[in-house]
Formats: sequence, C-alpha cells, structure tokens
Amino acid sequence: MTLITLLTDFGLQDEYVGVMKGVIATMAPDAQVIDLTHGIDPQDVTQGAYLLAAAYPYFPAGSIHVAVVDPGVGGSRRMVAMACDSHFFVAPDNGILDRVLDQTRDQVLPATAVYLENQDCFLKPVSPTFHGRDIFAPVAARLAIGFPLENLGPGVDPALLQRSKTPRETVFRGPDLIGQVIHVDRFGNLLTTIDQEELFEHGFWGPDAASVRITLCDQSIEGIFSSYDAVPRHSLLAVVGSRGLLEISVNCGNAQEQLGAKKGTPVRVSPTE
Amino acid sequence: MTLITLLTDFGLQDEYVGVMKGVIATMAPDAQVIDLTHGIDPQDVTQGAYLLAAAYPYFPAGSIHVAVVDPGVGGSRRMVAMACDSHFFVAPDNGILDRVLDQTRDQVLPATAVYLENQDCFLKPVSPTFHGRDIFAPVAARLAIGFPLENLGPGVDPALLQRSKTPRETVFRGPDLIGQVIHVDRFGNLLTTIDQEELFEHGFWGPDAASVRITLCDQSIEGIFSSYDAVPRHSLLAVVGSRGLLEISVNCGNAQEQLGAKKGTPVRVSPTE
Amino acid sequence: MTLITLLTDFGLQDEYVGVMKGVIATMAPDAQVIDLTHGIDPQDVTQGAYLLAAAYPYFPAGSIHVAVVDPGVGGSRRMVAMACDSHFFVAPDNGILDRVLDQTRDQVLPATAVYLENQDCFLKPVSPTFHGRDIFAPVAARLAIGFPLENLGPGVDPALLQRSKTPRETVFRGPDLIGQVIHVDRFGNLLTTIDQEELFEHGFWGPDAASVRITLCDQSIEGIFSSYDAVPRHSLLAVVGSRGLLEISVNCGNAQEQLGAKKGTPVRVSPTE
Repeated sequence: MTLITLLTDFGLQDEYVGVMKGVIATMAPDAQVIDLTHGIDPQDVTQGAYLLAAAYPYFPAGSIHVAVVDPGVGGSRRMVAMACDSHFFVAPDNGILDRVLDQTRDQVLPATAVYLENQDCFLKPVSPTFHGRDIFAPVAARLAIGFPLENLGPGVDPALLQRSKTPRETVFRGPDLIGQVIHVDRFGNLLTTIDQEELFEHGFWGPDAASVRITLCDQSIEGIFSSYDAVPRHSLLAVVGSRGLLEISVNCGNAQEQLGAKKGTPVRVSPTE
Repeated sequence: MTLITLLTDFGLQDEYVGVMKGVIATMAPDAQVIDLTHGIDPQDVTQGAYLLAAAYPYFPAGSIHVAVVDPGVGGSRRMVAMACDSHFFVAPDNGILDRVLDQTRDQVLPATAVYLENQDCFLKPVSPTFHGRDIFAPVAARLAIGFPLENLGPGVDPALLQRSKTPRETVFRGPDLIGQVIHVDRFGNLLTTIDQEELFEHGFWGPDAASVRITLCDQSIEGIFSSYDAVPRHSLLAVVGSRGLLEISVNCGNAQEQLGAKKGTPVRVSPTE
Repeated sequence: MTLITLLTDFGLQDEYVGVMKGVIATMAPDAQVIDLTHGIDPQDVTQGAYLLAAAYPYFPAGSIHVAVVDPGVGGSRRMVAMACDSHFFVAPDNGILDRVLDQTRDQVLPATAVYLENQDCFLKPVSPTFHGRDIFAPVAARLAIGFPLENLGPGVDPALLQRSKTPRETVFRGPDLIGQVIHVDRFGNLLTTIDQEELFEHGFWGPDAASVRITLCDQSIEGIFSSYDAVPRHSLLAVVGSRGLLEISVNCGNAQEQLGAKKGTPVRVSPTE
C-alpha cells in the first residue's frame, strides 16, 4: 500500500482537500492519504518548504508527498515531480522543494526530476484555478499505482528547479548569526530559519558551544536549550526544537503573544563574553 | 472497499467528527472515510448544498455522501437517503441535497429516495442532539456493507424533498443576472450562486459571449476570465472557478478583504455596450 | 485491522499530527488512524479528559487511544499506557485519563497500566519537545502490531496515576449542584462538568425529577430538556447533551455569544418551588 501525503495552503473550511482525496481514491483506491497540514499561510511557499522538509523523513520510503502552495496556479510556472532520498515529491516548481533539496544535497543517490507535461496524466478539462484537483492529485495517484516518473514529462536537472523567492536564508555576520521567524505554531512557538547545523558550525550549539544570547523584538534570551522545562513556567527560552530548527518559546505559554513577534521578525544569535 | 464522505458544519475543534468515524469503523470496518469539509458555516444549509454538489462528482461511483448541516436536529424535520447519479446521499431533509438534484435532474436514471424511519438501523438510544452519530453515521455504514436503500424506510419521490429555505437562486432581470455570495473560501475568493450554465444561457460566457461587467460592493469588474493570471497581481477579477460557479477573486490576494464583501452580498452581471 | 485514535491540543495548522501519522504508518502500516480532535485548547488537560471519555466508547473494542495534551513534555512527568474497558490508552500521566477511569471504576475487569519506560519502543533520538512523534506514536504503533502492554514498562496501579490538577469536580451544596463550563463547542454550546448521573442522583433529572432552574452569567434557565426544539428558536435552554453532560445551548443560535460565558464560568442547578 502506497502512502500519499498532502501539504497545502488550502485550509479545511472548503471542500478542496476532500476533492483531491476523491480524485486519488478514484484512481488509486489502495493508496493511503495522510494530511501533513493544510494550514500553510496562503501562498507562503517558504513556510511550506520548511514544514515539508521537517515532516517527510518520518514517512516510509516510497511515499509520495504532494505539496501545493501555488500562488502562480494557472500561469506560466511549471510543475514538477521529483524522486529524492527514497521519496517522491509532486509540486509546483516555485521553490517549495528548496529545503528538501538543501537537506539532501550530499546524498549518494542524487535527485531526479521531471516537469509535469504529459497531459494524459491530468483530469480533463484542467481548471486553471485548481491544479491540486486536476493535475497534482492525479499525478500522485499515477505514481502510487506504479506509473514511471520519467513518463510524466521531460527530465530536468534538480539543480535547475526554481528556488524560493522569499529571502529566507540565515546570514552569518561575524560573530552573529541572523535569521528570521518563518512560522508561528499553534502554541505560539516561533520557528526560525536558523538550523542546528548552522548553530553548530558557528560554535553556538553542541558540547563545546560558547555562551549565547538570542535577540528579537528588543528582548534578549540567554542560552539555547533542548527542553521547555529548562526554564521556569511562563519564561521565555530558545530551544533547538523537534525539527532541528531554533525556536523561541515560552514554557507553558505563548511566545508570539508575549513578544509580539510575527513571521519575518529578525532573530539574532550572538556570543556573550 | 466502499467510500463514505462526510460534509458537516461540526468543525474540527470538537470530537463530533471523530465519533462519527468511530461508529462507521465499528459497523463497516472496511469502509474508507474521507472528509469533504466540516467547515460549513454553522447551520448554513445552502452553503453545504453548493459545496456538496461541487465535490461529489470527483468520487468513485457507489460512494456514500453524508451531509449533516442540520439546524432542525431532534425536531420534526425528516431524514433521507437517496441514490442519484450513481452515488448515495444521506442527509436531513432540509434542502442540503438541492444542488445535487438540480445538477442531475435531466438524468436518464432518476433519483430514488427513502425517509430514514427504520429505527433498527440507528444507534440506541438516539440522542436528540447528535443524529450525526446515532443516525446518519450508522445508516451510511449499513449502506457501505450492502444494506439495501429501500429497507431504510418508506420511499419518497425526490421531487417532494424539502428545498433550501434560503433565497439563493440566481435571478434574471433582463438584461442583468443577479446572484449573491454564497461562500468565502480560505483565500478570500467569493463564491457566488451564479453558475456557468446561467452565464452561458444569457450570453455572458462562452466563445460568443458579450462584453460583461460584474458589480458588487459598489465596485465594477470588467470581464469574466478562467485564470487568475488574466489580470496583474493584486488586481480584482471575476472567474468561472473550478466548481463551475462565478467567483470574485484577487490575483495573489484576498477579495473578501479588498471588497469588504461577505456571504449574502449581491452580485450583478451586466452586458456592457 | 487495529484502530488508533488521536486526541491532542496540536491543532492542524502545523505538521505535528501528520508526522505522528507518518511514524505510525511506518511501524504499523495496517493500523487505521482516526482523529478524535486536535482542537483541545492548548495545555487544557481537563478539557481533553472530558472529550476523550465522551468519544472512546464509540470505537471498536481493542482500539488504541492516544491522548497528548502535555504541558509537561520533556520534564519530569511520567507517561502511561493503560488497558481499560477493552480499550487501550496511551498518554502522559497528567490526569488526561481521569474521566475514563471515573467512568469505568465499577467494572468487573479492572484497568491495568504501565509507565512508558522501555526506551527500545521510542524513536531515537527522542526530542524533548515532541513526545507525540518520538514516544506516543511509536508506542501506539507497537500496541497495534501486538506488542504486549506489559513490555512497555513497569506496572502501576491505575489508582496511583496523576489526577487532573484543575479543580473541575461538580460540587453538591445542598440543595444546589454547582459545576462549571469545561468546553465551548463549535456552535457555542457550553459543555459543563455536571453529568446526568449527578443530576439523577440529586433529583434533577429522570422520570421523577423536580422542577429545576439553571443559573449562569446572572441568567436563569428553567428546566432541563433533551432536545433543542423544546424551546423556540433563538431561546436559551439547558439540555443533557449527547455526551451525557449538562449543556447550555441556544436553539439555532450560539449560547456563548448570547451569555458571554466562557470556560470556567460557574453553573448552578437548583430546585424551584
């Protein structure tokens, strides 16, 4: 039984996600469909890229991950299917696969990708406003029943896929590491672009880490921890969270509310003397 | 494996939907359950009718669609199971099947329907406040395991089922077509009651369509398109959306916020000279 | 096929729930996962306890119910798996199983429980901020594939499990019964801590019940009913709802908005002369 996951910015108040599942159930009745999330902020490709990369490794090899955050739907952007790290990805070519590619660039088995151009694999007619239903779902269903990736369209070097257009990279301005808030979760935890590899590389994380100060919203937080209860209840802290990313949290509280932070808020990691 | 879909106004913050799935899993363990949406505005039967009709054709023949938007639960309203267009529908008899019947009225195979009166098919005792759990879910589960529709209760001519009580029909006041906003989706797109058949019939859509102006909220929009990128980013447009209904959108933006429109806002389609 | 249910305060805007399902699908591919709800108010263990107890009896015997409302994640609280009433429960040991234990305390077959301490059953490494993914999901998956409960860790007398820390019990201050609002559902119905057994015991419910007045938010409501349509549309009423708990509702309306009530609002049931 093949697994298909869905990550979109469609929300759940409409019938969009249900309809995609209907298309998949019609074409690949044995596939199991799991929602990663449909709560990506509307059209926030970068946020989708981070959550997709955090989630997919917890699924079985061979899973097919459909990621539709697609502000360019119906326009000139291309669409892509990719095999990478023993998983399949189906998405618009707009940068939403960025983090997956970043995470896996040192792999022995390189990614392979095709543009979705074989229209025999789409529903007919294709609505220019709902490719999730008419292109991405049927393509995922075909992969689930064993249709070969390379028959979906012409090959493309994954290195040539579009990168995210949002400036999101963490920047090192010695001795500081500067990133930003990329997502606020249900608990008000602030997920940042700064990952544990970057923290480690610059000496802010790991067994030999220096003392560190995190600054955002005119507030300073001392130290990076791995567990909420490293600080008293209702206190601010910085943690390397379950996604391997630096998060700003309040133990048993809501960091977003306490700080007034939001997506895009800059976050600075500095050594302390 | 039979497919059961659920469309309700229950939301997902409570355990209601989960409990319905528990009842189904107990009685029809092989049935697959898919959520169409549980985000129908509380007690908005008409909105439910539109989204149900837009969604069900994307499911396999033989699917069972449970639609519970039921302000009259526990009162005197009746309940119905219907076979129509190779699908089954289970719902309160309050108009939520209106659009399905409208869409399919010219079919060779007419709909057949029964009132749900065979109490042997219900959970016991029936809570007068949660027929989703105690009546609709078990009835759907029985259909899924092959229980005959006609054994659920006495037959009823589908033409005699209740119609939606909300005035929702699109009206032709020559030369204008006047409808209203029926639903606002997650992106702020305004879904209207005006469907592409009505637009076509009055010369506003199709290869020979006249020039057209859409008016709502004291704003005018020129033309009806099929794709968001027919206009510049952040511009208003009218599209025939993926449901075959006229929608008012903003390319990469939010029409509801930009216009201040809401459910019930009148929408006028006029020819332009 | 074994059934696993999930009840959390994770919401659906993040990938947390999807990732838990990925872990389960990897380890127990034949298990079926059903969401009870992920809409528990953040860290509200007591609310989770009530909704879990209301929902689980509608699932098949042998189902595994994972309940993760876990403000102490990563700290010193313990975790537990319990067999009770022919169901399994997997949860932090923080009182979230309170109501299940209350409901089932007179059973012939007593509950058995173990602390989750067999680390071979966890994902590695365990993130101190996401035990849902790294401990609760893999433990549930192991139970689903037949791993014995007693191998998950040392046994514990269920009577020694932590009780909910929120004062929530209904109090009898003769002749009145005093409880509080524990949850507001999607329709604005106010779910209270007062259950039908307590109402019956004190003569407020059942065939011989006295006349009764419910008081909250400086408003009085006469009588307890079983169906919304016992009062005119848009009128307040008290009902014993589908969970067997006293609820305050408005027929075709929203009691929360009409009363300005909220979680914790006291509710008094008094006899009337």
